[in-house]
Amino acid sequence: MRRKPIRKPHRMTSTIENSESAGKRIIVSIDTMGGDRGPAAVVAGCSRFAKKNPDVAFILHGPKDVLSKLVGRRKSLLERVTIQNADGAVSMTDKPGQVMRNGKGTSMWNAIDAVKSGDADVCVSCGNTGALMALSMLRLRKLPGINRPAIAVLWPSRNASGANVMLDVGADVRADENDLLQYALMGASYMRNGYDIKRPRIGLLNVGTEDNKGRPELKAAHDLMSINADVSNFEYVGFVEGNDIPSDKVDVIVTDGFTGNVALKSAEGTAKLIRELLKEAFNHSLLSRLAALLAYTSLRRLSGRIDPRQLNGGVFLGLNGTVVKSHGSADATSVASAVQLAFQLGQSGFDEKLAARVASAAALNQIDE
Amino acid sequence: MRRKPIRKPHRMTSTIENSESAGKRIIVSIDTMGGDRGPAAVVAGCSRFAKKNPDVAFILHGPKDVLSKLVGRRKSLLERVTIQNADGAVSMTDKPGQVMRNGKGTSMWNAIDAVKSGDADVCVSCGNTGALMALSMLRLRKLPGINRPAIAVLWPSRNASGANVMLDVGADVRADENDLLQYALMGASYMRNGYDIKRPRIGLLNVGTEDNKGRPELKAAHDLMSINADVSNFEYVGFVEGNDIPSDKVDVIVTDGFTGNVALKSAEGTAKLIRELLKEAFNHSLLSRLAALLAYTSLRRLSGRIDPRQLNGGVFLGLNGTVVKSHGSADATSVASAVQLAFQLGQSGFDEKLAARVASAAALNQIDE
Repeated sequence: MRRKPIRKPHRMTSTIENSESAGKRIIVSIDTMGGDRGPAAVVAGCSRFAKKNPDVAFILHGPKDVLSKLVGRRKSLLERVTIQNADGAVSMTDKPGQVMRNGKGTSMWNAIDAVKSGDADVCVSCGNTGALMALSMLRLRKLPGINRPAIAVLWPSRNASGANVMLDVGADVRADENDLLQYALMGASYMRNGYDIKRPRIGLLNVGTEDNKGRPELKAAHDLMSINADVSNFEYVGFVEGNDIPSDKVDVIVTDGFTGNVALKSAEGTAKLIRELLKEAFNHSLLSRLAALLAYTSLRRLSGRIDPRQLNGGVFLGLNGTVVKSHGSADATSVASAVQLAFQLGQSGFDEKLAARVASAAALNQIDE
Repeated sequence: MRRKPIRKPHRMTSTIENSESAGKRIIVSIDTMGGDRGPAAVVAGCSRFAKKNPDVAFILHGPKDVLSKLVGRRKSLLERVTIQNADGAVSMTDKPGQVMRNGKGTSMWNAIDAVKSGDADVCVSCGNTGALMALSMLRLRKLPGINRPAIAVLWPSRNASGANVMLDVGADVRADENDLLQYALMGASYMRNGYDIKRPRIGLLNVGTEDNKGRPELKAAHDLMSINADVSNFEYVGFVEGNDIPSDKVDVIVTDGFTGNVALKSAEGTAKLIRELLKEAFNHSLLSRLAALLAYTSLRRLSGRIDPRQLNGGVFLGLNGTVVKSHGSADATSVASAVQLAFQLGQSGFDEKLAARVASAAALNQIDE
């Protein structure tokens, strides 16, 4: 029933081969401001990805003089960058409402607008999540039939593909049963297109797997998903718990943005603590340092799999256009990872496929209601 | 402001020295049924802890013939065990309401009743969480002034004490601002008594640290905690995020039972995945196996710190008596860990101290309202 992913795990790659747009130049619109480390880390990340990939080009939004200097130093970006000056920037503390009213001309606004106008295929920002979602909704508009857009992240897992997708992880702290069903459909489309999984297995995050557990909207969503599974071509595995997220039981984990955000960050915090403790353990004695040397390759492989920087990038689903949210604290490695995700989403033509899926689901939903 | 814990981290130990009950025999009432591995694992866990500690005794509730055989084999349990026959058992799928009506005579009911009657100091069960909480509330009753009892768990952290406490992790999926304040007070009392932290730092789990983030009840709780911090002798550090849970920023993480349960299990799932990947990494080649051998001690130390079995045991707070909930899948190591926690709570006289704290807080709250 499930095929193995065609290329390496963790990334949207499998449809690239078959896509009409394969090999075409993808233009990524970048908000260079708003990340905690400023434009230098963002430009370094773009450069890092550009070195590996000849088919990417960038529109960089931000202060022209600063960006010109940063870009000028990097051969990898030569003739692949357009700089569009933006003097304003959205800060981490700006409220979404303010940004919607007064954010015109900021690097974030302009980065999104480049997707709206068709100048770029996809947008990447390390900025304020709430503001980025608000501006994305304002400028790109929701897909017809979508009530709440969601942010989806990839999660290292025991699956053959190496990853699950979870949504929503923070677009909206509320979600009713219809929103949760829409998340299921969007998540299924993501896995279908990204990992060539014909019939993605969907689990609904709860505090127990019995039918009587959890909040009322979860019970309603449980029923709704059971009814819609066949016709929408996904397998509904029922309620799953937090420890099932990285398991091989599911491909898509559906939850509201509050719970998803807490789950994601708890897992990240845990992974970080273990990485630090592991480092300490290997620095503990001469013997353990020698051991670390011997196990270098194995440890690096492990480290790559659990490094949150390697899986950086939340994708906004449910809009007319693709926006990738990178971690605010992203360094060059993280930014490169977010740009890679954006690039692959752009190349796969995921946008149009998701829109088609949602449109047919919306039609279905109207019949159901 | 904060003193280091007197003994080893991860456990409620520091007050034992000063307590009147130090050295006194603690009787632990055990529900031997209900865990996924049956009474054999539970008895093995009791035996394991008994070997290390001469001051513990047990009342085992379950099928007499089975228990007699299991106990008879173990010298460590000789003359330290009373077996009380119970033919009924609560299963993982029983609904709390049913168990409240029909659960009389089950091993779970009887295990709790031994605390109510004063025959035992504290109760341990691996059974159905919902049923255990329902029966605990029915038989032990809530402390005056407590609306919703909570389940608290210790969490490995970067703190000097090596642990934070988080509550609620699943007693109740709802919590309003007053419940969250009560959780803060109970969590503070737990850290004060267990870790000798005079003024515990309390964080409220949210999806961002800005004042405007999250759900309405969180904003109300935020205000309530700010107002109550000084008079209730805790430090309120404001909103924290999932990745702050294992950090050194906080001692107590307050959240509703739904979110806390998901956070806990997400972290457990992540730790488990990393442990498995680590094992694979070290089994990958001859060289990496040699490395594992060299780093054996360091890795064991690390493994101990991140092994969920070593931190097994959720404590029910807010009742007239102490109940420790062990993982349903607990093996002997896990059960021993839960029994150790129960023993130390019993010895510290935590019960009475928490009751006193909640009583004074309830008085305060009435003034505030």
